Amino acid sequence: MAIQEMLKLDVTQRIIEAAKSKAEELNVKEDIAIVDAGGNLKAFARMDGAWLGSIDIAMRKARTTRFFDAESAKLGKMSQPGQPLYGIEFSNGGLITFGGGIPLEDSSGTIIGAIGVSGSTVANDVKVAEAGADVCRKSKWATA
Amino acid sequence: MAIQEMLKLDVTQRIIEAAKSKAEELNVKEDIAIVDAGGNLKAFARMDGAWLGSIDIAMRKARTTRFFDAESAKLGKMSQPGQPLYGIEFSNGGLITFGGGIPLEDSSGTIIGAIGVSGSTVANDVKVAEAGADVCRKSKWATA
Amino acid sequence: MAIQEMLKLDVTQRIIEAAKSKAEELNVKEDIAIVDAGGNLKAFARMDGAWLGSIDIAMRKARTTRFFDAESAKLGKMSQPGQPLYGIEFSNGGLITFGGGIPLEDSSGTIIGAIGVSGSTVANDVKVAEAGADVCRKSKWATA
Amino acid sequence: MAIQEMLKLDVTQRIIEAAKSKAEELNVKEDIAIVDAGGNLKAFARMDGAWLGSIDIAMRKARTTRFFDAESAKLGKMSQPGQPLYGIEFSNGGLITFGGGIPLEDSSGTIIGAIGVSGSTVANDVKVAEAGADVCRKSKWATA
Repeated sequence: MAIQEMLKLDVTQRIIEAAKSKAEELNVKEDIAIVDAGGNLKAFARMDGAWLGSIDIAMRKARTTRFFDAESAKLGKMSQPGQPLYGIEFSNGGLITFGGGIPLEDSSGTIIGAIGVSGSTVANDVKVAEAGADVCRKSKWATA
Repeated sequence: MAIQEMLKLDVTQRIIEAAKSKAEELNVKEDIAIVDAGGNLKAFARMDGAWLGSIDIAMRKARTTRFFDAESAKLGKMSQPGQPLYGIEFSNGGLITFGGGIPLEDSSGTIIGAIGVSGSTVANDVKVAEAGADVCRKSKWATA
Repeated sequence: MAIQEMLKLDVTQRIIEAAKSKAEELNVKEDIAIVDAGGNLKAFARMDGAWLGSIDIAMRKARTTRFFDAESAKLGKMSQPGQPLYGIEFSNGGLITFGGGIPLEDSSGTIIGAIGVSGSTVANDVKVAEAGADVCRKSKWATA
Repeated sequence: MAIQEMLKLDVTQRIIEAAKSKAEELNVKEDIAIVDAGGNLKAFARMDGAWLGSIDIAMRKARTTRFFDAESAKLGKMSQPGQPLYGIEFSNGGLITFGGGIPLEDSSGTIIGAIGVSGSTVANDVKVAEAGADVCRKSKWATA
């Protein structure tokens, strides 16, 4: 019997739908990836016309975020030349340290995964990821 | 303007739903991956409790299938010791050549992608992948 | 706040100690790796004189085991030429499908990780891994 | 008979314990990796709640340190844009060149391995690594 997962597929799909709706509202096309608490892919969707190169970036943003339990953009500030974490991107098979990765917390504030979005400007990617994370934050399932 | 995609996200999601329903009917837990005509991931879903190791296998089955426009199982017969394609798994960063990968054809019979399923016996994986491929075959969108 | 881990370091270290004691009893030298429920490395130890090549194999055995929630040897039976999972080793960056990987269950029977052992004959590797898994099975911490 | 190792497992485990104690004193959670003179992993421990992304970074810091027999931070100064070793991180499958990697010397000053620590600020990582290296420096075993 395997351990019970905290990030269920039905909630994951609602997170993706919310992110997609936000992307449509902003008129952008995004790749959306969601990883669970172990950093393993739970679901992915590529909107029609979204960049092929963003498939991998969305996944890496999600993984980077869960790996350090922080928005991917936060890491990027510390990884600039002259900053403390310069070159951290070379670890873990390649990190992505600009915005678009947001931790997924349940309603108790526990981090249970991460969402990574890529396909538009970083500012838009972050907005779309936030829309997904909001759905997770409002869910009660993970604390039940 | 990028090339118009033949495999749309909404159909892709219906394919995944059909595969998931079949898996539930069979009482198995599956990882389901769908790639487009370019062999690039379009969508992915991991059912609750499905194997972590099947994330990668489902994706590779889909990719292997589209790479050679044939069910992954067909390749596996030819890659056995002494057979013509022995060792083909070493190519393309690692192929998976047992059953569970099925080409996605539209209603005109054109191959527009592939589905890869992993998580149960190969026989069940194939049934689940077929349920997804059926949805695609009955769709008219791709020929419109 | 990150999700609470079920496989704690102090238990992990007791598992490694038990495996090491078994190896000493058998007069063999082993590499011992333990991954958590997410398949991520929790702890590792290489006994003095153990093979360098077994560092990676022990880790892969542990990961393979958790990826499919089954002893690594079980997979190996199904991955032989002519068998259903022939070539599965090409997935997940390289699986190891011979014996020496055992799921780690807590006292409730829930799988919370895996142990992988490499360094001697497969028969000895399995015995050493079992000694580690026994410690985990007798622990109450994961059900508390 | 294989070459006799200078970095024994029992000392390695005492090094890890000392590093862990320092981390607890500082109230931080660290991933701790130790490599031997050949740059190969000897032992690893991830403290409860420590970042998943630091598993790989701790190992790379240790390897980077032994590869050039210098604290990882020293390399980082020379790898900044415009500096002599700019881009050195691309070598060896990915180096990590910020602080947290310290050479392990025995009481004679001979370098016999390296410790890499990741999980907190670079300043804390260095302190924790130093606590581990101190244990090694005070040991007589390696010169016996």
